[in-house]
Amino acid sequence: MAKTIAGPEIERLIQLLAKLPGLGPRSARRAALHLVKKREPILRPLTAAMADALDKVGECSVCGNIDTSDPCTICRDPSRDQSVVIVVEDVSDLWALERAKALNAAYHVLGGVLSPLEGIGPEDLTIRQLVERVATGEVKELVIAVNATVEGQTTAHYLMDQLEGLDVKATRLAHGVPVGGELDYLDEGTLSAAMRSRTAL
Amino acid sequence: MAKTIAGPEIERLIQLLAKLPGLGPRSARRAALHLVKKREPILRPLTAAMADALDKVGECSVCGNIDTSDPCTICRDPSRDQSVVIVVEDVSDLWALERAKALNAAYHVLGGVLSPLEGIGPEDLTIRQLVERVATGEVKELVIAVNATVEGQTTAHYLMDQLEGLDVKATRLAHGVPVGGELDYLDEGTLSAAMRSRTAL
Repeated sequence: MAKTIAGPEIERLIQLLAKLPGLGPRSARRAALHLVKKREPILRPLTAAMADALDKVGECSVCGNIDTSDPCTICRDPSRDQSVVIVVEDVSDLWALERAKALNAAYHVLGGVLSPLEGIGPEDLTIRQLVERVATGEVKELVIAVNATVEGQTTAHYLMDQLEGLDVKATRLAHGVPVGGELDYLDEGTLSAAMRSRTAL
Repeated sequence: MAKTIAGPEIERLIQLLAKLPGLGPRSARRAALHLVKKREPILRPLTAAMADALDKVGECSVCGNIDTSDPCTICRDPSRDQSVVIVVEDVSDLWALERAKALNAAYHVLGGVLSPLEGIGPEDLTIRQLVERVATGEVKELVIAVNATVEGQTTAHYLMDQLEGLDVKATRLAHGVPVGGELDYLDEGTLSAAMRSRTAL
């Protein structure tokens, strides 16, 4: 806005809200207005929840997950098979796999993928930490669950190179037809992969 | 999420963020993760901005605008024609008119529109306050800038009834073709109105 309308406090609130993913300048204005109008039901508890997160939430020094304890709840969970480590790009992927209850194992969050175009090199990711974790000998299997994109696959290959000589089994997620998916809408690569990996009925 | 993954603090943050307009459960998760990862650049200043808003921002007792002072900056602005009051449904409409620098006048925020279906009656809006404001004799013109919806127009008619006998001129925004709009995409009501109100070139 060219001119401040409702004072610098609200302008600042709008500008900061607009930095959240999914909120543009227009929806940030709507969100700010909503917050100010719903003081007690939303603004006050959200402010407290954020202050709480600021105070308590941090990165797990073992796996890179986000939690209120370090090591995180997952790393300290004795019911999980801590010898199987699922390697993901981002905490959101970890959350997705946890929602799916995909495997009761540990994780390692890379913090992104290699991308020469965006200037992201191996030292920007937690690859060294992962290699060190594997070198302790406590990890028997790494499930490389990076995205099936070019950058993801490049990162997976680079990671495999770094792990050479270490005694660990590496696996990857199966390619195939998504459950509930329609063949007609799938790309040829997925269909070919699903056909190659067909299983007995 | 069926199971808490990252502790109750983050779950609560996600739930509260999901109450903001424009954020669903999925984008609230992304926003929460973004906040926690960008502690210093976003989470800390946004928490402070919200605490600031909680502390300082409130409703103007004269016009219903949202501001850090009461009466608000607009109501106290001597450069504005305080005898002209623009009646809007919501603070977001006030902001829109201010961005457009539509008229350097005062405002009155109704706080919604009459809607028997949603159980919103005259006592839920600031109609009585507006009538009292006009009754002081200091308001010469009311620009009824409610939305051109059925509820908006019903509210405008009800308001006119309440103002009967008071010495005030009531006007409304002109109907017509939006600037930059294409005729082909406009509804017939707008085109007819624009034709009836055609002006000399």
